[in-house]
Amino acid sequence: MTNESDIAEIGETRPDPNALRGPDDHLNQEWIERLRAHLSAGEEHDVAEMMEPLHAADAGDVLEALEQDERVALVQMLGDKFDYLALTEVDDNVRTDLIEELPTEDVARGVATLDNDDAVYILEDMDAGDREEILAQLPAFERLSLKRSLDFPEDSAGRRMQTDFIAIPPFWTVGQTIDYLRVEKDLPDEFYQLYVVDPSYRVLGTIPLDKFLRAKRQVRIENLMNHDVLTVEATEDQEEAARDFERYDLVEVGVIDENKRLVGVLTVDDIVDVIHEEATEDIKLLGGVGDEELSDNVLSTVRSRAPWLVVNLFTAMLASFVISLFNATIEQMVALAALMPIVASMGGNAGTQTMTVTVRALATRDLDRGRVRRLILREVTGGFLNGCIFAVLIGAVTWLRYANPGLGMVIGLAMIINMIAAGSAGILIPLALNRLKVDPAIASSVFVTTVTDVIGFFAFLGIAGLWFGLF
Amino acid sequence: MTNESDIAEIGETRPDPNALRGPDDHLNQEWIERLRAHLSAGEEHDVAEMMEPLHAADAGDVLEALEQDERVALVQMLGDKFDYLALTEVDDNVRTDLIEELPTEDVARGVATLDNDDAVYILEDMDAGDREEILAQLPAFERLSLKRSLDFPEDSAGRRMQTDFIAIPPFWTVGQTIDYLRVEKDLPDEFYQLYVVDPSYRVLGTIPLDKFLRAKRQVRIENLMNHDVLTVEATEDQEEAARDFERYDLVEVGVIDENKRLVGVLTVDDIVDVIHEEATEDIKLLGGVGDEELSDNVLSTVRSRAPWLVVNLFTAMLASFVISLFNATIEQMVALAALMPIVASMGGNAGTQTMTVTVRALATRDLDRGRVRRLILREVTGGFLNGCIFAVLIGAVTWLRYANPGLGMVIGLAMIINMIAAGSAGILIPLALNRLKVDPAIASSVFVTTVTDVIGFFAFLGIAGLWFGLF
Repeated sequence: MTNESDIAEIGETRPDPNALRGPDDHLNQEWIERLRAHLSAGEEHDVAEMMEPLHAADAGDVLEALEQDERVALVQMLGDKFDYLALTEVDDNVRTDLIEELPTEDVARGVATLDNDDAVYILEDMDAGDREEILAQLPAFERLSLKRSLDFPEDSAGRRMQTDFIAIPPFWTVGQTIDYLRVEKDLPDEFYQLYVVDPSYRVLGTIPLDKFLRAKRQVRIENLMNHDVLTVEATEDQEEAARDFERYDLVEVGVIDENKRLVGVLTVDDIVDVIHEEATEDIKLLGGVGDEELSDNVLSTVRSRAPWLVVNLFTAMLASFVISLFNATIEQMVALAALMPIVASMGGNAGTQTMTVTVRALATRDLDRGRVRRLILREVTGGFLNGCIFAVLIGAVTWLRYANPGLGMVIGLAMIINMIAAGSAGILIPLALNRLKVDPAIASSVFVTTVTDVIGFFAFLGIAGLWFGLF
Repeated sequence: MTNESDIAEIGETRPDPNALRGPDDHLNQEWIERLRAHLSAGEEHDVAEMMEPLHAADAGDVLEALEQDERVALVQMLGDKFDYLALTEVDDNVRTDLIEELPTEDVARGVATLDNDDAVYILEDMDAGDREEILAQLPAFERLSLKRSLDFPEDSAGRRMQTDFIAIPPFWTVGQTIDYLRVEKDLPDEFYQLYVVDPSYRVLGTIPLDKFLRAKRQVRIENLMNHDVLTVEATEDQEEAARDFERYDLVEVGVIDENKRLVGVLTVDDIVDVIHEEATEDIKLLGGVGDEELSDNVLSTVRSRAPWLVVNLFTAMLASFVISLFNATIEQMVALAALMPIVASMGGNAGTQTMTVTVRALATRDLDRGRVRRLILREVTGGFLNGCIFAVLIGAVTWLRYANPGLGMVIGLAMIINMIAAGSAGILIPLALNRLKVDPAIASSVFVTTVTDVIGFFAFLGIAGLWFGLF
């Protein structure tokens, strides 16, 4: 993305030392160092000059690049010029630590300048005491509206919604509406459609702005509106709302309360963030990482990752126990010890492949019941085919390496068995977890590798024992 | 999401057998079966009645739920009533197979009804011959505009852009513009901002519709427009454009060619799909799965996953080779064979955790250079701490299980070493790949587990050999 005014100034090839971002989209360290210097010298005017032109998202990135004491200094130095919207763009840690060090009056004044949804985003993570203190300093109308949003469950549409919207009666004309929009001061900052409501604020229809714009002044609203209205319930999970935005290419949707009254709107910019966060969450869960952030310190990282490692320790001890059942076998033929991890590892990888595809398909609701049976069949057959291919490969290598055709047969057979197990576990475990209402991204990986480890070791050592008469 | 008209009809508790989707958001199998019955009975009218009210996204899901011959029958039965937009909502396989069976004239007529970006989406995956045939049957203006879009690189902004947009001169008034919008027939279906351009179509400014709506008729466009215009170059990757939408909360952005002329617009609904696809791609790559789809058959699945498994086979053979260096040691103390996978497996998991966080941070551009050093330090220290914790745990268990305190010490020491290796490899490998311009999501996993396997086996068996004097 290029800023037209920049192009004229700087040309395209040389990176601009005054630009916030380098050509690779990363923050320009020179810029940050200059800001740091102005900050520590207390040069208010220069700091303001650097920060004021920034979009809130960029200001947030700048805050993250600074140290905690510099962040506090920056916000205090900018005073009312600091845009609190930037706090919605930083890691939760950074925000929490920063807000704790700022005077409550400042935070209250900053939050008061924000849209309802952004204010909620900042308030929802604070501890109850601080939150009440800040709410108490806000004007009554804003306080009530924020409290209502905060009463909805975490990650619900009600928490993410913007409570300013444009609601008009069906009997108005386009002209009346335009006049109202031109005169009325208290309108949302940005809006993409108008809501046609009855006296109790139930949605009768919507009108996208582009359609509205092209209508003649005398047209009546009820003749212009779409009757096929989609709405989201305020208590609905933001992830479900996001799926609707994706599926139906929405830009804005009305949020209704339990009485079907319009209480707010969700806009696509918030939904883009939701989609992004949910993807990050899934990726982290699949990698065995919980709700951690880049700005976490080492202790909270260790703490958040420990549960997964503990579970894996039990799994590994189980696999170890399976191996120790075959101690006598291994003692008679030590080559088995070196070969056994190959079967387990190949199964683990194949199982992870199947599991990844299944978990993602479940997360995106692409896996309809009609397709499940076909997919199970595909994965089990695929496991068998993979098993055959890699049985031949590893069997031949083993035969040559140990000059022992029997050992090649044994590892090949074990490979086929474990690859079928991998394909089956890779699809059946996520499906079962999903049916039990457990997020398959959380737990599938550990179960799948447990299966492939245990079956891998057991099949290989067991078949070897039988084949070579080592029991 | 609820459709208001449905609520009135059906109440909220009982699932509606006539609804396309059940309460869990999955397709209603009853509905699909009913469609199937009408299809095979050739009941055109009933089929049309079921399909016509559907949104294109839902029609796409229905197509996916059918068998290939039913899909062809459905499209042919609906004739001109079939909305080709549905083809942009299905897996590539499904689309390709379906289009191959349809007469070219039908496809050309269907594609002609689509917006430019949707038509490109369908045409870009076809083989060149079929594409040319279809293009040849389109009106000249559309053909040229589609060809221009198709000339941009795959996954570029130029491929995804919509070529209809509203461009107006700066000297018009709001009133003149509204009159133009009311009269002009050839406008985009949906638009969120107006583009103010000079005679050579360079963007001078933009006006969001909500702002435009609230301006008086006599206001001049140049006094209303935003001067701070963001644009995207047509050759830019769609992923980069998506990052701009996310960062700056955009709904629509202009796309410019190499002469800085406005050639199209990107809208947020396409970008939502891009964000979704890119997340899916990253998740699949991390799980060792390439560019496969749910509708792939077993052979293409096996083929697409094989490369990763082959790489893993080499890795596993390397680990196996490391173990075989210690054959003599294991022969003297067979308990080592059962214990050694524990060290390797814990390292593999810890390394994957660090790698997952790093890869995601790189993908989302959250990992600025200023934060890298701190993060490396955090991961290496975290690895050491985790190593100490799990050294104590597994050391104690091993001591008790084998009544051998020395063995407990050995496995503990090996655990500490491998956890430090895991933390270091988990962050340094993705960073190195990223610097080499390789997508770290593709290759990090295999490198990281190779490191933790090799170091895990080597450290454990090596320390054991030294400790017990087994060499």
